Amino acid sequence: MEKRRAYVLLWKWASSSSSFSSRTLSNHRTLFSRSSDSGSTFNRGRRFTSLSPYTQQQRQNFQQSHNILIDSRVLHQATSFLRSSTLQVRFYGSAPVERIPSFSEINSKDIGYFKSILGENNVIQDQDRLQPANTDWMHKYQGSSKLMLLPRSTEEVSHIMRYCNSRHLAIVPQGGNTGLVGGSVPVFDEVIVNMSQMNKIISFDKVSGILVCEAGCILENLESYTDNEGFVMPLDLGAKGSCQIGGNVSTNAGGLRLVRYGSLHGNVLGIEAVLADGTVMDMLGTLRKDNTGYDLKHLFIGSEGSLGIVTKVSLLTPPKLSATNVAFLACNDYLSCQKLLIEARRKLGEVLSAFEFLDSYAMNVVLNNLEGVRNPLPPAVHNFYVLIETTGSDESYDREKLETFLFRLMESGLILDGVVAQDINQVSSFWRIREGIPEALMKSGAVYKYDLSLPLEKMYDLVDEMRARLGHPVKVVGYGHLGDSNLHLNITSPKYDDDILAQIEPFVYEWTSKHRGSISAEHGIGLMKANKIYYSKSPEAVQLMVSIKKMMDPNGILNPYKVLPHSLSANN
Amino acid sequence: MEKRRAYVLLWKWASSSSSFSSRTLSNHRTLFSRSSDSGSTFNRGRRFTSLSPYTQQQRQNFQQSHNILIDSRVLHQATSFLRSSTLQVRFYGSAPVERIPSFSEINSKDIGYFKSILGENNVIQDQDRLQPANTDWMHKYQGSSKLMLLPRSTEEVSHIMRYCNSRHLAIVPQGGNTGLVGGSVPVFDEVIVNMSQMNKIISFDKVSGILVCEAGCILENLESYTDNEGFVMPLDLGAKGSCQIGGNVSTNAGGLRLVRYGSLHGNVLGIEAVLADGTVMDMLGTLRKDNTGYDLKHLFIGSEGSLGIVTKVSLLTPPKLSATNVAFLACNDYLSCQKLLIEARRKLGEVLSAFEFLDSYAMNVVLNNLEGVRNPLPPAVHNFYVLIETTGSDESYDREKLETFLFRLMESGLILDGVVAQDINQVSSFWRIREGIPEALMKSGAVYKYDLSLPLEKMYDLVDEMRARLGHPVKVVGYGHLGDSNLHLNITSPKYDDDILAQIEPFVYEWTSKHRGSISAEHGIGLMKANKIYYSKSPEAVQLMVSIKKMMDPNGILNPYKVLPHSLSANN
Repeated sequence: MEKRRAYVLLWKWASSSSSFSSRTLSNHRTLFSRSSDSGSTFNRGRRFTSLSPYTQQQRQNFQQSHNILIDSRVLHQATSFLRSSTLQVRFYGSAPVERIPSFSEINSKDIGYFKSILGENNVIQDQDRLQPANTDWMHKYQGSSKLMLLPRSTEEVSHIMRYCNSRHLAIVPQGGNTGLVGGSVPVFDEVIVNMSQMNKIISFDKVSGILVCEAGCILENLESYTDNEGFVMPLDLGAKGSCQIGGNVSTNAGGLRLVRYGSLHGNVLGIEAVLADGTVMDMLGTLRKDNTGYDLKHLFIGSEGSLGIVTKVSLLTPPKLSATNVAFLACNDYLSCQKLLIEARRKLGEVLSAFEFLDSYAMNVVLNNLEGVRNPLPPAVHNFYVLIETTGSDESYDREKLETFLFRLMESGLILDGVVAQDINQVSSFWRIREGIPEALMKSGAVYKYDLSLPLEKMYDLVDEMRARLGHPVKVVGYGHLGDSNLHLNITSPKYDDDILAQIEPFVYEWTSKHRGSISAEHGIGLMKANKIYYSKSPEAVQLMVSIKKMMDPNGILNPYKVLPHSLSANN
Repeated sequence: MEKRRAYVLLWKWASSSSSFSSRTLSNHRTLFSRSSDSGSTFNRGRRFTSLSPYTQQQRQNFQQSHNILIDSRVLHQATSFLRSSTLQVRFYGSAPVERIPSFSEINSKDIGYFKSILGENNVIQDQDRLQPANTDWMHKYQGSSKLMLLPRSTEEVSHIMRYCNSRHLAIVPQGGNTGLVGGSVPVFDEVIVNMSQMNKIISFDKVSGILVCEAGCILENLESYTDNEGFVMPLDLGAKGSCQIGGNVSTNAGGLRLVRYGSLHGNVLGIEAVLADGTVMDMLGTLRKDNTGYDLKHLFIGSEGSLGIVTKVSLLTPPKLSATNVAFLACNDYLSCQKLLIEARRKLGEVLSAFEFLDSYAMNVVLNNLEGVRNPLPPAVHNFYVLIETTGSDESYDREKLETFLFRLMESGLILDGVVAQDINQVSSFWRIREGIPEALMKSGAVYKYDLSLPLEKMYDLVDEMRARLGHPVKVVGYGHLGDSNLHLNITSPKYDDDILAQIEPFVYEWTSKHRGSISAEHGIGLMKANKIYYSKSPEAVQLMVSIKKMMDPNGILNPYKVLPHSLSANN
C-alpha cells in the first residue's frame, strides 16, 4: 500500500518537473574528459575557471602594467588594482611583511653553480618566463624572483637545496602555481624551484591500483593515465589541467571526490621529499599497511612546501566505477538538508559521491547572472537546493537504489521537489548551477569570500547571523560541500565598502573559531592567512609547528613568510 | 546465450556445494555483538583470542613462577619459559636492553605528590594490581613497575607528565594492554599511566557521525554506542573487548575494516594529547577539512605513546549498512586470486568489505587441528581459497550484485568452486576457517610468525621461496588480508630449532626490505622490533624520527626503549 502511494507521488513529481526519467549516465566523466580539447571540460568548468574574475586578456594587461615588483608593497598595489577593477573583487587580510634580512641575494657565482648542475636551459633568468612564475593565479600576489630552476631529478633538487641552504638563499617550491592563498609564488626574490620537468609516471600496479609518479605530473594527465587502466584518481579539482600532484599533496588539496574517497592523508601511501639541507627522505612506500615508526609523510602533506620539496608520490587509486546518477532537489529548510544527508549516507552510503547544497540566494544569483542557466525545477519558492551524485558499479541497481530512496523521501516530505538527470547534458546543467555560483557572484558586485569548515549543525547559523548583522542591501549567500561540512560563505554588496568589511571581520573568524571551525577548509594558509592561523589552531599547536619548522629548516629558506605567523617565522 | 550458460554453470556449482542459496544476512554483526554475554562473540573470536597460546591457568602459573623481574634478563627468561612450554611457541628478536641510568627511581615524596593530585585510590602500588599491568597480553614481556597511576582528566595527565619530566621519571602509557610487540608494558620500572578511567563519550553528532570521546573508552563500548545511533566504528579488532581507543590510535590499529574504511590516519579527525613536559595539545578538531598549518595529529597516530599521551579522540564513523554477504571460493593459483581481487574491486567496489585469502597448507592446518571446522566446498584439491564479504545498504540489490559477479567469474574459470553463506551460522563458519588459522598453527607444532606488508604481485613469491629454502619437514603457510596486501607468513616445524630460525632470519626481513615491504604491517614496533626498523625505514627517516623524539621529549621519559633503535634512544 505504502509503496504504491510512493509511486503515485513520484509520478506527480515526475510530471511536474522537467523529467524524472532516471536513465543512468554511465561514465559521463570519462566522456567529458575525452572532449577536453574544447577547452571547457566538465571538470575544468566546475570550480577553478569559475573562480577567476579575469580573462586571459585582462591577465596580460595586468602583467604588462604591473611588471615585476620588488617588495611587499606589491600586495597593496595588487589589492589596489583589484579594488579599482570594474569587477569589484576585494582581496584583503594580507598584512605587510618585511624581507628577512639574513637571506642572501643571488650573484653570478650562484648562477654559474646552478648552470653547472642543471644545464643552461634549466636555469631561467629571462623576465618573460619569470613573470608568470612570479604571479599567482588570482593575480593577488606578485613576487620579484630573478631566478627559476627546473630540476629533472631528485638528485638535482637535492643539489639545489644543499647549495641554497649553505648560501642562505630562500626558495619557493612551485608546481602548477594554481594555489589560491599566495603559497606558490615568491614574496620577494626567493629562488623559484619549479617541478614541471619531473613529470614521469614511475610505476602503476594494475592489481592494487597503486600509482607512483614524480611530483611534477599534472593531475589531469594522471587522471587520463589511470582512467586507461580502469582506475580513477582519488582527487579531482577544477584546476586539474594545470595543477601538479606534488602541489596537490603539499597543499592537501580537497576537491570534488573527498566526500567519497577521503583526504590525501588517507590516499597518499608514500612520499619522497628533499629537506632544506638537501637530505633525500625516501618515504615512498607503496603499502596500505606499514606500522614501522612515525608516519613522517603526513608532515609533508599540507605543509605547503615549508618543510621539504615533495619530489615523488605514491597514491592509492580506486577502481573506476561505471554508473553515475545526479539528482537536483529542493528542501524547505536547512534542517531538512541535514536530514537528507543523514538518509543519503545511510541509504546510498556506498554509492554516494557528492552532496552539495545552495540556498535560495545562491540560486537567484546564478539565475540572474549566468546566461543559459535555468532552474530545472518548476517555478516555486524553495529555500534550499541539494545536488546528490551517486557513482557505483552497476547501472540498473544503482538507479533503482536512488529511485527508491527518492520515492521514500518525497513521501515523507523531506524533499519538496526534485529531478534526476536523464542524460549527460542534464548532468552538466545541474552541476553548472552549483559550480557557477562563484562566477555569478563575481558578476553581481563586490564579493567578500570565505572558505570555512564548520560543524554541520551550526554551519548555516553563521549565514543567518551574518544576514541579520549586515542587513540591506548586502546579500549573504551560503552554499558548499554539505557532505564535507564545508561552507562557502559569500557576501556581496553593490560596491566595495570598508565599513562592511569591518562588520564581517574579524566577526566571521571569531565565530568560526568559537565553533571550532577552520578558517581554511581546503585552500591552505599560504601568505594570505599566515597571521590568522590562531583562529583555528591553539598557541601550543602553532608553537609545535614552529619548533618542527626550525628543526627541519633551521635557516628558514623553504617557502618563507608562508603558513606560520610572520612574527614567529621572522625569528628564523 | 552467454548469460544462460552462466546460469547453468551456477546451478551445477550450487548443487555440488553445500548451498548457493544466497539469502542475504542483514545485520549479522549486530546480532553477534548483542550476544556477547556468551563470551565468544563473532568479533572477539576472529583474531585476538585465537592468537593466545595460553589458558587463563597457564597465565597465572607464569605470573606466580616469574613474579616481578627487574632488569632486561626478563626478556630472556620469558623467552626461555616460552621455549620450554609444551605449546612450542617461539618468540625471538628481542635484543637485551639496559635501563637508561639517567632515569630516577620512585621515592616516597613522588608517591605523596601523585596522591595529592590523583587521590589515594588512583595511585596503585599493590603488587596484585601491578602484576597484570606489568605483563603483556602474550606473556612475552614483563616489567617491574612499582607504580600505576589512574588519571581521570587531561589536567591530571598533564600534572603527572610535568612532574615526571622534572623528576626524570620514565613513563609507559597504557590502554587495554592488548598490544603484541611489548609497547604497552614497562621494560623496567617505568611509571604506568593507565587511561582506563578516562572513558567518557564527550559528544556524538548524529548528522555527520563524528564521535568525540576520551582515550580510555573501550572499542567495543564505542561500537555498541555508535551502533545504537545507526553508525559503525571504522575499525574492528579481535581485541575490541579490552583495547582502548587511545591505544588504537597510538598504535594505528588496522583490523578487519581497513579494506573498506582505510586507516586511522584517514578516520581520526582530531586528537588531544599531553606532551612529555605536560603541555596539553588541543588538536581535537571535528572537521573533515582543515588546511590550517601542519596536521600534527598524525605525529601521534602510530607513534606508540612515545611522543605524547593521547587523552581524547575525535573520529569519523560511517553509517551502519544493513546487508552483508559472505562467499567462500576456491582458485587454482595466486594469480587467479589477484585477478579475482581486481574484479571484485571493480564490480563489487562500493560494497566490498573483506577480501581474505589462504593457501591449501593453511586450509589443511585448520582442518587437521580445529574441531568442528569443515571445508564448505566439496572435497577437491584446491591451491587457494578466498573469502569475500560485502556490506551494503540494500539486501536484494547487494545479493544480486554478488551473484551476478560470481556467475561471471565461475564461467570465466577464475573461480573453480564456491559457496555463499545462507545464514549467520554459515557466515560464522566461513570466517572461522580464516580466523582459526593462528590457533590451528599453534596446535600443529613450533610456529615462526611474521606479519608483513608486501607489494601484492610479489607477496606469495616469498611463501614459495621460503618453502623451497626450508624443505621438508618444515611447513610454510601463507594467508592474510589480500585486499590490504598484508601477508601472514607462518612457518611450523615439529619442534623449535635454532637452525631453522637461522634459515628464516634475517632472510625474511631482507626479502621484505628488498621488495620495499613492511616488517610490521599492523602491530607496530614496540620493544620487539625497535632494532629492526631499518628493514622498513631509511636511515634518514629514522634519523628524523629520532630528532622529532628528542625535540618533543628531550628527557626521553615517554615510553623509553620502544619504537626507535635502542642505540639511538639511549643517547637521550
